[in-house]
Amino acid sequence: MKTILKSKSQEVIIDTDGPVLIIGESINPTRRKKLVSTLSEGNFELAIQLAKTQIEGGADILDVNVGFPGVDDEKLLPETVKAIQEAVDVPLCIDSPNPKAIESALKVIDGRCLINSVNGEEKSLEAILPLAKEYDAAVIGLVMDDDGITYDPEKRFKIAEKILEKAVKLGIKEEDVVIDPLAMAVSADPNACLVTLETIKLVHDRLGLNITQGASNISFGLPNREALNMAHMVLSIWNGLTCPIANPNKITTIVRAADLIRARDDYAMRFTEFFQNQ
Amino acid sequence: MKTILKSKSQEVIIDTDGPVLIIGESINPTRRKKLVSTLSEGNFELAIQLAKTQIEGGADILDVNVGFPGVDDEKLLPETVKAIQEAVDVPLCIDSPNPKAIESALKVIDGRCLINSVNGEEKSLEAILPLAKEYDAAVIGLVMDDDGITYDPEKRFKIAEKILEKAVKLGIKEEDVVIDPLAMAVSADPNACLVTLETIKLVHDRLGLNITQGASNISFGLPNREALNMAHMVLSIWNGLTCPIANPNKITTIVRAADLIRARDDYAMRFTEFFQNQ
Repeated sequence: MKTILKSKSQEVIIDTDGPVLIIGESINPTRRKKLVSTLSEGNFELAIQLAKTQIEGGADILDVNVGFPGVDDEKLLPETVKAIQEAVDVPLCIDSPNPKAIESALKVIDGRCLINSVNGEEKSLEAILPLAKEYDAAVIGLVMDDDGITYDPEKRFKIAEKILEKAVKLGIKEEDVVIDPLAMAVSADPNACLVTLETIKLVHDRLGLNITQGASNISFGLPNREALNMAHMVLSIWNGLTCPIANPNKITTIVRAADLIRARDDYAMRFTEFFQNQ
Repeated sequence: MKTILKSKSQEVIIDTDGPVLIIGESINPTRRKKLVSTLSEGNFELAIQLAKTQIEGGADILDVNVGFPGVDDEKLLPETVKAIQEAVDVPLCIDSPNPKAIESALKVIDGRCLINSVNGEEKSLEAILPLAKEYDAAVIGLVMDDDGITYDPEKRFKIAEKILEKAVKLGIKEEDVVIDPLAMAVSADPNACLVTLETIKLVHDRLGLNITQGASNISFGLPNREALNMAHMVLSIWNGLTCPIANPNKITTIVRAADLIRARDDYAMRFTEFFQNQ
């Protein structure tokens, strides 16, 4: 299954049979006070710097999130998108809980982006899927719904299936739905990671879709977070994750290692090249 | 399945349903010139130091190998074993290609050790299995035979099955056979790790035995070996590896992380405790 994204001049294909692609997570104001203050002033330098650093670190796609308290993201999200796509040439992933902000970003975006995200709630499905169809974007489907978050992998799978069905009914292509299995902190529930890994496997085996995941928080509240994030990343890839949303500057090495071990890197070229460029 | 090992006063159980145990690999003269020279002089200080450092680093069991060109290991192996078990109190894994050296070590060992190793060659089966039976030791079965090393997981599995059958026929308990699926360098063959991982899964699913692996060499000839070794370790554990032979000072963190993610570490106690002690 191939999800095709585009920037101004580049095509990037997320391929379930290919190597893992990385969606850089760092353009996100959570825990980045300076990003909040500069964006509030209409200053996009730091956002652009984060874009460049992540691409150098191995990002293939960039998530763009400008959510912080008091923000007018219907205005700021498209402005930030414009600033970033003038500075760099990789596809973007438009990240907002506000459908109006998503739409205003879709109006200005070059190429073909990923929407982050729709979920199984009726309200979300009704607001986001028509936008994906209208603006020809791919869309991330997050496996929670009106009943909240379940810890049963079969139920999470059913939500993925429902999102896919609704999308296809609207005329969105199957390959343009990318599932996010939901990663929760393992400190809060010892089975949190197992549930996520099992959901990834179910979606991979039964639907064959591309799978994303913002998993940096699985290690919340624990020491040595990088080791936990690396172990979870490798196991997620093994089970079917194809395009994690992560900090490339911390995770690319282990992602490339996982691909090499899975025989998805002929002559170890991607692994060796990445290492030489760091 | 539980493989019970003992030192002078401690019992260590390798349990297919428990957390991963680490067999420290470092008492091995390969690439350790100083260990060769000190052992040659009958000086065990460095060997004892390596034993202690590995236990502090998370080793539950220690591999003891004194093989180097010109060595009289029938004499040196039992001497080294005696020196180590006087200094530390963990079970040992007696590592030699020479059955006579193995037997001379078995004669002096305290508790219940692991023999490293028997393989599917007739000569090896005939020499090693009777020793395991006579001295009540557990034994590692390496999946190569008179035809050499195969890259077909089903054939590797068949060798494991053959070793198990021969052992059981001699009166060795099933749980005292620990399989080594053979890890080869991924730089030499892009499928090397996949074959090993698939073999681990077959042995785990069909025989349910404990599984070991000396996997530090999968990254031979490549940069950033630690990332490759970590990724391969995590995937091996996911597929059924229960007692890797590795350098605990490099690998314990990621092993503990894998156990936590697999929900084999209640309240993250082992993970957190290990981190606090480093």
